[in-house]
Amino acid sequence: MDQRISLVTLGVGDLARARTFYAGLGWHGQEVEETVFFQAGAMALVLWDRGKLAADSGLTATGSGFDGVTLAQNVRSEGEVDEIVAAARDAGATVTRAPAPTFYGGYAGVFLDPDGHAWEIAFNPGFTLDDDGALVLPEF
Amino acid sequence: MDQRISLVTLGVGDLARARTFYAGLGWHGQEVEETVFFQAGAMALVLWDRGKLAADSGLTATGSGFDGVTLAQNVRSEGEVDEIVAAARDAGATVTRAPAPTFYGGYAGVFLDPDGHAWEIAFNPGFTLDDDGALVLPEF
Repeated sequence: MDQRISLVTLGVGDLARARTFYAGLGWHGQEVEETVFFQAGAMALVLWDRGKLAADSGLTATGSGFDGVTLAQNVRSEGEVDEIVAAARDAGATVTRAPAPTFYGGYAGVFLDPDGHAWEIAFNPGFTLDDDGALVLPEF
Repeated sequence: MDQRISLVTLGVGDLARARTFYAGLGWHGQEVEETVFFQAGAMALVLWDRGKLAADSGLTATGSGFDGVTLAQNVRSEGEVDEIVAAARDAGATVTRAPAPTFYGGYAGVFLDPDGHAWEIAFNPGFTLDDDGALVLPEF
């Protein structure tokens, strides 16, 4: 597994309020299907409904210990997703979403580290990974 | 405020367990004063005691809504810390730690976004920011 975070997704209770807040700090994002993506250097910050993020992470929004934050690493193939999730399981992670095709045409799985921090490992053909592994958002 | 995350710090209950887990995934870090730093592309992932992280973020570890995760943006001057924290307050953030000198010889403040996600804005003369704003950890 590369030492890289591709996306940090923050669960939010009110997407418009959250987007307005970050706009007030000068952040410019793109909103797609009730999700806001901000290019942030070599990675992206994402705002998404907290309940949807929890469910997507294989958790419930409350009572599961869900952080309200999910980290993601994007990789270059479905096989790499399988390998990393298997290695995480072997290292003691709890797999909350077994690797499988995603609604956006990719392939991803989610695990929790020993402290319950959620990591999605994703192959997303719609997002570019440059030679250095930096994530470059498309123009949606 | 630049669109950039310099560090993602994960609160952990057992630092050795967490470090061993990430080592099992192939991550190589440096441990300094009971904190583990991993260079991760243009940023860093950090493991730190959850209670200390909460306190450093101006929160308590339980009952405060603390995520268990704190994002940080490192900037180039103390004045920039003041400006960003003031802008965040104006945009509706809750400032949980007013900008002030830090134990490591820097200067930092912390705010919560409208969903309670903690951001530290820090000037840390011990960490390099390159021309693109990427964070480069020192050899400790």
